[in-house]
Amino acid sequence: MGLKFKIVKTVGKSRLGQLLTKHGTVNTPAFMPVGTCATVKAMFPESVAATGAEILLGNTYHLMLRPGADLVEKMGGLHKFMNWDKPILTDSGGFQVMSLSGLRKLKEEGVTFRSHVDGTKYFLSPEESMKIQYKLDSNITMCLDECTPYPSTYEDCAKSMRMSMRWAKRSKDAFVDRDGYGIFGIQQGNVFKDLRAESAEALKKIGFDGYAIGGLAIGEGQEKMFEVLDYAPDMLPADKPRYLMGVGRPDDIVGAVLRGVDMFDCVMPTRSGRTAQAFTKYGAINIRNARHREDYRPLEEGCDCPLCTHYSRAYLHHLHKCNEILGVMLLTWHNIRYYERLMQDLRDAIKNDSLDNYVVQFYENQKRGDIEEL
Amino acid sequence: MGLKFKIVKTVGKSRLGQLLTKHGTVNTPAFMPVGTCATVKAMFPESVAATGAEILLGNTYHLMLRPGADLVEKMGGLHKFMNWDKPILTDSGGFQVMSLSGLRKLKEEGVTFRSHVDGTKYFLSPEESMKIQYKLDSNITMCLDECTPYPSTYEDCAKSMRMSMRWAKRSKDAFVDRDGYGIFGIQQGNVFKDLRAESAEALKKIGFDGYAIGGLAIGEGQEKMFEVLDYAPDMLPADKPRYLMGVGRPDDIVGAVLRGVDMFDCVMPTRSGRTAQAFTKYGAINIRNARHREDYRPLEEGCDCPLCTHYSRAYLHHLHKCNEILGVMLLTWHNIRYYERLMQDLRDAIKNDSLDNYVVQFYENQKRGDIEEL
Repeated sequence: MGLKFKIVKTVGKSRLGQLLTKHGTVNTPAFMPVGTCATVKAMFPESVAATGAEILLGNTYHLMLRPGADLVEKMGGLHKFMNWDKPILTDSGGFQVMSLSGLRKLKEEGVTFRSHVDGTKYFLSPEESMKIQYKLDSNITMCLDECTPYPSTYEDCAKSMRMSMRWAKRSKDAFVDRDGYGIFGIQQGNVFKDLRAESAEALKKIGFDGYAIGGLAIGEGQEKMFEVLDYAPDMLPADKPRYLMGVGRPDDIVGAVLRGVDMFDCVMPTRSGRTAQAFTKYGAINIRNARHREDYRPLEEGCDCPLCTHYSRAYLHHLHKCNEILGVMLLTWHNIRYYERLMQDLRDAIKNDSLDNYVVQFYENQKRGDIEEL
Repeated sequence: MGLKFKIVKTVGKSRLGQLLTKHGTVNTPAFMPVGTCATVKAMFPESVAATGAEILLGNTYHLMLRPGADLVEKMGGLHKFMNWDKPILTDSGGFQVMSLSGLRKLKEEGVTFRSHVDGTKYFLSPEESMKIQYKLDSNITMCLDECTPYPSTYEDCAKSMRMSMRWAKRSKDAFVDRDGYGIFGIQQGNVFKDLRAESAEALKKIGFDGYAIGGLAIGEGQEKMFEVLDYAPDMLPADKPRYLMGVGRPDDIVGAVLRGVDMFDCVMPTRSGRTAQAFTKYGAINIRNARHREDYRPLEEGCDCPLCTHYSRAYLHHLHKCNEILGVMLLTWHNIRYYERLMQDLRDAIKNDSLDNYVVQFYENQKRGDIEEL
């Protein structure tokens, strides 16, 4: 029952692993593109798979609002509904309830809120979140938790974390165990080491298929985040996958892999695809910038995505200046491919004992900046 | 030099043909998806080709504004710029100048106007339009003409048509002849038969690779349009392709093929893809309608497009309710595929001497309306 996780190799704190689910294997370290409303925005699922992505994230909050968990269940689950037969992880809905919904009321029992779409009233509790994620047929269910803002007082973080741990227990109790499906606990505690430790102990006592590090990348900055990541992953079981939620920029991911994290998700590559920000080996660039107007070169030399193999920067610039959907389609594809290549490179570097060199080169390239203007 | 057109078979007034260009062959009757700004909106060019489309239309007005003809030329022409290696037809820019631009001044010499994008002043004449379409590397160049509104007086239509014929001569004189490239004249005359005849005579005297029927589908309604099409195509040379500009709905196309038209373009399938209107065998439907919310069936049974083979109406409904780009991508693909299947069916029916039966069945199906609600 549950999920199997094999650690293939460890170099320093970095791990090469394999997470086995009902819908296939996820090689870790892994990046999960975000498919908020049962679609990775502007991507065909076949194209998402072509980028190398082996697992997607779905947002419980959005899906419970539209089209609703009952409808997704009726349609045979999220995989079938959205034509993605590989693994899916769903968040618990808690984070988006806090950031998107209106008129929230948080109690020990759960949270009442109004939909940001049409004002409809909903109730979300650990038990309800489990039920919804079950109906979605999610391979990896996340516990319902509360995420404190940054900065917050020690007392607020302690109180919130302890409620999240009680919710973690209720989540686990309500979770229906099936072979190839699993549930992850979420460590909270903000930037306070002893709270992180207390949270980790509480989660281990309950026992999960994997452990997420929550409550980071919420405005504390990379330096503070890395300070927490210097100890937080080590508090979690070594033989289970560790998932850093909502992270992040390419250099965040590299730093987190060095600190022992196995899984990531972030809207960065997809959202950037819609706002003309392109990720490249030599850092991020904005393709709307006038310097690209007559540039016949590919966005990123050597990239094997459709954008870089068939089109010029000038064409991509033109599409984004004209707000053409194809500009979003091509750049989103490239950006996800960039992230998935980064993960493949990290996995290869762990495998080939070349991680140190890879990381030095990675930071040098990122620092170098875009290719020279024509 | 120029273009070759072979008529393979004629049934009644309907013709099965092949138009040979530098970039490949177009089987006629043919439908050209519209790629206004060097992209068929929300489609990869590979996907456009996969629908069966053998030729695209590009809009000179939009392209001269953004990214500009000089830039497209510098990038190796429109085919290379937009990664479409099949034939391209470009309009002359005249129609959009009249419908989109600001502060127009029309004189015998040409038209001065301001860009609807940024107010920049431009001048377009027959010679200028030829120069731009040459830079775009268009396989089929269209003469610059003026299109009278509907309704217009006989006098206005006569005056305008005669200027268009003088412009046609200037267009032909300025056109640079190359093998596999050609220029089409455009018949005007609104709904007046003698003006249509006069226009056809003027064009034939100049001599073109093909002849368009302009000034229709501008509000006169299908009945009036068919009245004109009952005689207008017959006035044009039988051995050259006939192109009905900006048409139309599926039943417009069927009616026009029966009246001897070979080529069509229209924004209908692409624009409808963005507004949730779906074309099916049994007529057009709006996928946002609540009746599709829980419908697990494909949009159109038997259609081989990605939408109909992999997704439910419920999923497409969900995507359009959430304004997801994938909804536009999938529905645009289906709609173009619908149009290209229609053209293939018409070509097959001419080939197999089953056009009459096909047309009866087509109208019966269209009249039947959508499949029954679940």
